[in-house]
Amino acid sequence: MSVTTKATIASFGGKLLKLSHQATTTRCEMAFNLYLPPQTFQDPAAKIPVLIYLSGLTCTADNCSEKGFFQHGASKRGIAVLYPDTSPRGLDIQGENDSWDFGTGAGFYVDATESPYKEGYNMYSYVTEELPQTVFAAFPQLDATRVSITGHSMGGHGALTLFLKNPGKYKSVSAFAPISNPINCPWGQKAFNGYLGSESEKWKAYDATELVKKWKGDLNLLIDVGTGDNFYKQGQLLPENFEAAAREAGVAGVQVRYQPDYDHSYFTMATFADDHVDHAARYLFA
Amino acid sequence: MSVTTKATIASFGGKLLKLSHQATTTRCEMAFNLYLPPQTFQDPAAKIPVLIYLSGLTCTADNCSEKGFFQHGASKRGIAVLYPDTSPRGLDIQGENDSWDFGTGAGFYVDATESPYKEGYNMYSYVTEELPQTVFAAFPQLDATRVSITGHSMGGHGALTLFLKNPGKYKSVSAFAPISNPINCPWGQKAFNGYLGSESEKWKAYDATELVKKWKGDLNLLIDVGTGDNFYKQGQLLPENFEAAAREAGVAGVQVRYQPDYDHSYFTMATFADDHVDHAARYLFA
Repeated sequence: MSVTTKATIASFGGKLLKLSHQATTTRCEMAFNLYLPPQTFQDPAAKIPVLIYLSGLTCTADNCSEKGFFQHGASKRGIAVLYPDTSPRGLDIQGENDSWDFGTGAGFYVDATESPYKEGYNMYSYVTEELPQTVFAAFPQLDATRVSITGHSMGGHGALTLFLKNPGKYKSVSAFAPISNPINCPWGQKAFNGYLGSESEKWKAYDATELVKKWKGDLNLLIDVGTGDNFYKQGQLLPENFEAAAREAGVAGVQVRYQPDYDHSYFTMATFADDHVDHAARYLFA
Repeated sequence: MSVTTKATIASFGGKLLKLSHQATTTRCEMAFNLYLPPQTFQDPAAKIPVLIYLSGLTCTADNCSEKGFFQHGASKRGIAVLYPDTSPRGLDIQGENDSWDFGTGAGFYVDATESPYKEGYNMYSYVTEELPQTVFAAFPQLDATRVSITGHSMGGHGALTLFLKNPGKYKSVSAFAPISNPINCPWGQKAFNGYLGSESEKWKAYDATELVKKWKGDLNLLIDVGTGDNFYKQGQLLPENFEAAAREAGVAGVQVRYQPDYDHSYFTMATFADDHVDHAARYLFA
């Protein structure tokens, strides 16, 4: 459970920590970043809520830490931001480095059931259990009872599914350009086939559009998707499928904003990061 | 004078344009970025003031566009941000790619007088004359009479010297971690020796600490330097020399903020970018 500090970087009045730990679920050293807002240091008795940000395909914890602008809003609101990595690294599993949308950098926030990937590609357990346990043990000022979740693209899929699979675990959820119906898009089908096997019925356990059909109550969910996002245009994201499923299931509170011209990049996240921090703050400080 | 648009990216309600043009001063195609704030599009009759951001060693126009978050404040204030490149590219001048702090990516905002660099390393003329002329011709909504300047490290040196050498040309100046006294630091000595020759008396024409001695009136200058900045600790920046020279010359209005723990990275710029945009806005909208 011990955490190694690789760097401490002043940012927006707080500190961005580059950390790593030896993870058992993923069987390797996992890097992650943690932003501690200024309130952490101003009042040692303050309990600081946490927003988990799940990154997209090919990313590490660093991309959003540098380009996503979450520290700006988190600093104002007094929220820590936890940036996990997107997969195990360096397991030397055959094929894991063959493509950018599967294997390394593309863990898809599932627990793999197929060999050889089940030997470490367990990002679902890692992000829902091992990483937060590690972080809350190492940073007692963080409030384990107040955690929200957000993410981008594959990480948006992660945020939606982790929230929907664990009622009560997270105070709120939001997403940028989430892969909203992976069982019906090429990215999701490739990943789920590789990690979960060819029996597509099993894939539904990690599909937000399937999971929302069983949700009880409102969601209070904010999603931003850019209309200039090429992956949206190519049918990789399918937020309309998620919206329709929520509507048919009578799940209210799903707000999908189609942002004119915005693309799939961190420029979009930076633009709307404050809104997503504010969304989380509404529930973290309720 | 024609400008080629390589990309148009939605950002903070405005558009970040990736542009290039064939430059005569630098004898090559020069890439640059231009952020047009939302006000440009909301009111076609609006005249938009411009903040020039000069980048540091090794950088292109992209680094700060992605990680500096000037768009956040510029969007609120209605200011365009012009991000020039840091040197000519691809001239194939012998030695220009041998080190990271001289030649490519390290033009130092001077007009070289030494062979072979005088054949294109004319970033002073490029940034003060050719680039703005090109931009104002191509984007008539931009207000050529309201321009401010800022920059980071080598670009901070650029901002200070261009402002001090051209009274009245820029409405205001600010800088992050500027190389404030290049004739007395290793980076500056290496660059000036290469571009301007070994006669060090000539170097003073591009040294902010020398130039401020001759300034008439107040400066209203904002500088941020991080106390955790290794280049500051190594004596590459020397902001104290600039402060002392200004004080001795009776030049008021020099505000140098030593920011505890902040380093030389874009995390520092991102944190204080809003302050520097606000500083420029005070004079651009005076």
